[in-house]
Amino acid sequence: MANTITFVSLGPGEPELITLKGLKTLKEADIIYCPSTTLKNTKVSSRALDILLALDIDQAKVQLFDVPMSKDRTLALASYAAVSKLIHQAYLEGKNVAVTAEGDAGFYSSSHYIIDNLKRDGVVVDKIPGVPAFISAGALAHIHIAMQEEELHVVPGVITTSDLVDKIEKHRAVVIMKASQSAEDIKQAIHKAPQSTFHYFENVGLDTEYYTTDTEEIINRKFPYFSLLIIKS
Amino acid sequence: MANTITFVSLGPGEPELITLKGLKTLKEADIIYCPSTTLKNTKVSSRALDILLALDIDQAKVQLFDVPMSKDRTLALASYAAVSKLIHQAYLEGKNVAVTAEGDAGFYSSSHYIIDNLKRDGVVVDKIPGVPAFISAGALAHIHIAMQEEELHVVPGVITTSDLVDKIEKHRAVVIMKASQSAEDIKQAIHKAPQSTFHYFENVGLDTEYYTTDTEEIINRKFPYFSLLIIKS
Repeated sequence: MANTITFVSLGPGEPELITLKGLKTLKEADIIYCPSTTLKNTKVSSRALDILLALDIDQAKVQLFDVPMSKDRTLALASYAAVSKLIHQAYLEGKNVAVTAEGDAGFYSSSHYIIDNLKRDGVVVDKIPGVPAFISAGALAHIHIAMQEEELHVVPGVITTSDLVDKIEKHRAVVIMKASQSAEDIKQAIHKAPQSTFHYFENVGLDTEYYTTDTEEIINRKFPYFSLLIIKS
Repeated sequence: MANTITFVSLGPGEPELITLKGLKTLKEADIIYCPSTTLKNTKVSSRALDILLALDIDQAKVQLFDVPMSKDRTLALASYAAVSKLIHQAYLEGKNVAVTAEGDAGFYSSSHYIIDNLKRDGVVVDKIPGVPAFISAGALAHIHIAMQEEELHVVPGVITTSDLVDKIEKHRAVVIMKASQSAEDIKQAIHKAPQSTFHYFENVGLDTEYYTTDTEEIINRKFPYFSLLIIKS
């Protein structure tokens, strides 16, 4: 079997929402690179590793790489550069390398930093697609995220109140991925578009999962990092 | 075990891109409703059934329901109404009922016709999310569908040349789901936005899968029903 580098999408967080193909690739991999963060109490946390362990993947072949969470992205980019070299090295040694990505590896994923580094070094990687968080949020809320004739706008995070209200008035379905980046603007938009439904989610797929459409609840809430909205007019 | 109705997303077409949870639900179901179409030569075709068989699901518990493909949707709606009654009946008989959906059951899925019928009858269903076709197309093309700061617009099918060029000029990533509905307008946009990359796909996940970024190829092509584009500026 030839050496490979495969980015495996883990899906939204619930371990059983990985694909059969994704799980098979993890099982067959010689080494699995997996991002982690170091919390203030110096505890290492990795949502991806939690998923791997729930799926009975052998921890001995997992290599964590720490991605610093500070606003200044210099340290994170240095971390991606360092792990890209390790991944390339393992590949050159003939290994089947897997790299995990939460959600889907090609959809607002920081995987692209590593993929682009490898591409510059002449290595093309494979990706196994996965279920994005917003798709899972729609199932949790029992809604149709987008219907047959409806246009959907996915906003990564930063949006102004007027841009958001404009989308709603044009009857676009709107997904806001990192709602914490625009919490105040979104709360203003709730006042200006009272006829719309704001589906608000935190920590989709985790034990701390939370969902509401109660606008007063949403307005009083401090949006955490993993918060997203689906807005239907 | 209580009776249930679960819409199981099958993913983009490649059988192994179903989730573990989706497969488990299909295996545990007493009966599985699955859409089919009757072709002109009176042959019954069902992409969903093909996926189930590849996954070793017992065909004896599969019930096909025919969805007429004509532009007049009256017959299709009548078919959805009829199967909604059958699903409700099986549920009342205490069965665990699964209903299949290609891609994701909440994302531009005709599942909503059945779900809304059941809701009117007071029955709330569950959905198991899946990988949408455009997510799989991105993996096939080795691209980042959307990057960290990029807004993504998903267009179900109908779009004018000027609207599309406007999105491209604003640096939106654009997905067009049923490109055959606007083939001529898309081809015009290719001439007007030569700096952009048009990723064109047919039949993602099937043996007849096709992908190109060659604009001359795209312009000379007759877009079939299952064609989609991802446009990156």
